[in-house]
Parts: sequence; structure tokens; C-alpha cells
Amino acid sequence: MKGLTFIIGGARSGKSRHAEELVTSLPGSWTYIATAEAYDDEMRARIGEHRSRRGAGWQTVDAPLDLAGALAAQPQGQPVLVDCLTLWLTNHMLAGHDPDAECGRLAEVLANPRGPWFVVSNEVGQGIVPDNALARRFRDEAGRLNQRIAGLADKVLMMVAGLPLKVK
Amino acid sequence: MKGLTFIIGGARSGKSRHAEELVTSLPGSWTYIATAEAYDDEMRARIGEHRSRRGAGWQTVDAPLDLAGALAAQPQGQPVLVDCLTLWLTNHMLAGHDPDAECGRLAEVLANPRGPWFVVSNEVGQGIVPDNALARRFRDEAGRLNQRIAGLADKVLMMVAGLPLKVK
Amino acid sequence: MKGLTFIIGGARSGKSRHAEELVTSLPGSWTYIATAEAYDDEMRARIGEHRSRRGAGWQTVDAPLDLAGALAAQPQGQPVLVDCLTLWLTNHMLAGHDPDAECGRLAEVLANPRGPWFVVSNEVGQGIVPDNALARRFRDEAGRLNQRIAGLADKVLMMVAGLPLKVK
Repeated sequence: MKGLTFIIGGARSGKSRHAEELVTSLPGSWTYIATAEAYDDEMRARIGEHRSRRGAGWQTVDAPLDLAGALAAQPQGQPVLVDCLTLWLTNHMLAGHDPDAECGRLAEVLANPRGPWFVVSNEVGQGIVPDNALARRFRDEAGRLNQRIAGLADKVLMMVAGLPLKVK
Repeated sequence: MKGLTFIIGGARSGKSRHAEELVTSLPGSWTYIATAEAYDDEMRARIGEHRSRRGAGWQTVDAPLDLAGALAAQPQGQPVLVDCLTLWLTNHMLAGHDPDAECGRLAEVLANPRGPWFVVSNEVGQGIVPDNALARRFRDEAGRLNQRIAGLADKVLMMVAGLPLKVK
Repeated sequence: MKGLTFIIGGARSGKSRHAEELVTSLPGSWTYIATAEAYDDEMRARIGEHRSRRGAGWQTVDAPLDLAGALAAQPQGQPVLVDCLTLWLTNHMLAGHDPDAECGRLAEVLANPRGPWFVVSNEVGQGIVPDNALARRFRDEAGRLNQRIAGLADKVLMMVAGLPLKVK
């Protein structure tokens, strides 16, 4: 019952919804580790929407930065959903932290899941090269992070219009 | 011979061409429901190119807004190609209509295809988060619409460099 | 031992790395045809990183424009990696050349690979429609080129978070 499932997809591709369905198909209570920080109204609305779609049975843990710590604190066997990696990466980059070091810490924990763990992330690299250097840097870091975590995962799904496509 | 096929892909991924091949492999005459409106020369050129590639055997119906009505008016058993959903959504958003209500009307008709129906749409959510709020809103609405229609479809194909990848 | 493999993916999806692994699994020495030109420091850093990851056994040929000529000059049976098509297309567009004519020349050579050839390209069409006309034109040309080469290829892989998904 231990293992890592990585769910990647574009914006509004149904990643969170599908991940929630996978988690809630498991018995017991579930942990939702939220990495989002509500910087503005748009974000607050999106967080609220996700929160109201989940419902009873979920325990929410906020981990905008210390995701590795939040995961390491989970009990053995506990189903966990992390939503999502790209927001967590954004938070670290905005805070001026070294993405490589942070990704390394996270990868260490995800290499040994303590239960059925599900991690959601965004594909952001399939558009035109962005004009500004920060967006390009973010795109590079996000791509590297996705490769690294997908490499650790037992199962990788890509979401297309709400449907999962098995990649690994 | 009834059923809904949903074909999604990026810009210039060969969506329209592949959809046309699927439709013209069926016997009889074919209906092409065009949602494009020629706002500018670039658009006019693209519409002209698509039109000249099709050819005899096609009847073209323009439905930049009332796509649900145009579909409902199709005879039983008629092969129909809708190209494309994202332009139709753009038209409604530019006209100030409520995307959810319009998508709801469309979904009702697509839930009961009267013949072999093929619907083309764009994947627009796999790049960097757009700078401007309208583009973000469009991206969200397009993603929701794609999920909804893909959920109704009997078959879903994602186009990659002109090649279909079966998703459902 | 002759044949064309086309590897497409977004930015930082692991295209180059996977292509290198495929090539170096073959016996003998390998040719790396680089299309990148170092316009700026960011590009120079990226080229240097790729170069240091490869290592002994590789012979590097620079072909920012005359890719067809560089390929035609390869000996029979030689494993070749072209990295990447979208940079090559960018170089031609910046030089004011006709993309269609250049893609035609390239396609002629790739239609008859003289050994196990591997060609890497970027998917750039799955984001929001770009604001500026040049980016839209590039996106269109890149999409057309990708379709054309994928159509010629014996095998097509799409990279997702470092993992290959078989398309053809």
C-alpha cells in the first residue's frame, strides 16, 4: 500500500479532481497537503473551490514551503495528496531559495513514501518560449522537478481533458 | 453509427486534418460546422486554407455562436465535423455571454449525438501561466469545456505532431 | 539499422537526455549535430551544459542552417542525433529564409536516413495563442515542421516529465 503516483497535466486538465478520486477510493481518512498561498482574490477563489469540492474525510495540512517536513510527519500507511508541486516551487523561488536544494530535500522524502502518496504537478513547457527571464527560469526549474519526481514515481499519469493517460 | 469523437491538440498539431480524414472515411455527404469568424486577415487566410483543403462532398454551416442549434438541426445519421470549440468559446466570451451557460447548452446536445459527430478543440493549458487576466480566464474556461466534452465522448484522441494518440 | 526516430516534447521534458541514451545504446561512435547558436549567455550556458553531459564517443557537428547538408554528409550506418529542429527553424526565420523551402530540403534528406537517426524537436503549440505575430508565425511553422518530420519517422516519442510516450 506504499507507493508514489505522479499526476501531471496542464491548467484545468482535471489533475486535482482525478487525484482526489484516486485517493478517496482508498479506505480510511486522507491527508491533503496544500501548497497554495492566497496572494490575491483569484487564488483565494481557486483554493476555496478546491476545498469545497473535497469535503468530509479530508484533513488539510498547509505546506507552502516545508513540504518535505509535512510529508515526513505523515503516519505510516496514510493516503496523502500533495497539490501541487509547481505552486510549492513558485513559493520557494519567490522567497529567494535555491530550487535545486529544495527539490533535493523533497526528492529524498518522496523516494521512500510512507503510504500511498499522490503528487500533482503542472506541465508548463509546451507553449512558446516566454518573453521574460523569470518565467523561463521557472519553466526550466519546473521541468527539472517534474522529471526528477516522475523518475521516482511508481506510476505516472498525464491528464488530457480530464482523462488520465498512463505514461509509466 | 452514432457517437461522439473528441479530437484535442495544440496549434498546428494536425487536428483538423485528422478529423477531416475520419469524417471522409464515412460514406455519404458531410457537414462541416465552422465556428471561426474572420476578424482579421490572418484569420481569413487560415479559414481559406482549411476551406480549400476540404473540397467536394462537404456542406459548410457557419455557427460562430449557436453551435447547439446548428447541431440539433442536423439530420439523423449525418456525419458532422465541428471545428473548433475553442473559437466558439472565444466568440461567446468576446460577446460577453456566460461561458458556463453556453457550455451547458452545448453539452446537452453533444450528450446525444444524432450521427457520427467529430468535435475538434485546442489544448491551451500546457504553457506558462499567462500574464493577463483575460487569457487566464479563457484558459480556465477552455480547460473546463474540454473536460466536459471529453467526458461525454465515446472516443478521445490527442494529436501530437499530426499523429493521433488514443486517450479514451 | 537505418531509420528515423522523432522525439518531441516541451521545454525541459528530458528530450535531449532520452535521445542521447537511445543513441549511446548503439555500438560505435556517434555524431551530434547541434543546431544551436550562442546568441547570449543563457544560450551559451545551456549549450555548455548539454556538451558536458555528453562526453567521450561523440563527434559534434555545428549546423545552425545547413542541416540537410550535414546529414547528407554522414557515413552509412552512422548513429546521428540532431538537437534540435525548432532551433534550426528559428535560425532560418531570423535569417529571413523561407521556412517551407528549408523544411522541404530537410524532409528530402530525412526521408532516406543513412543510419539510425534521431531528431529532437519542441512542442510549442499547447499554450495560449501568443500576443505577437512573429511568435504565432513561429508556432505555426514549428507545428507544420513537426507534423512533416513525424510523418516520415519510423518511430515517434513524446516526452512527458522525462518519460517517453510512444506515439508511433
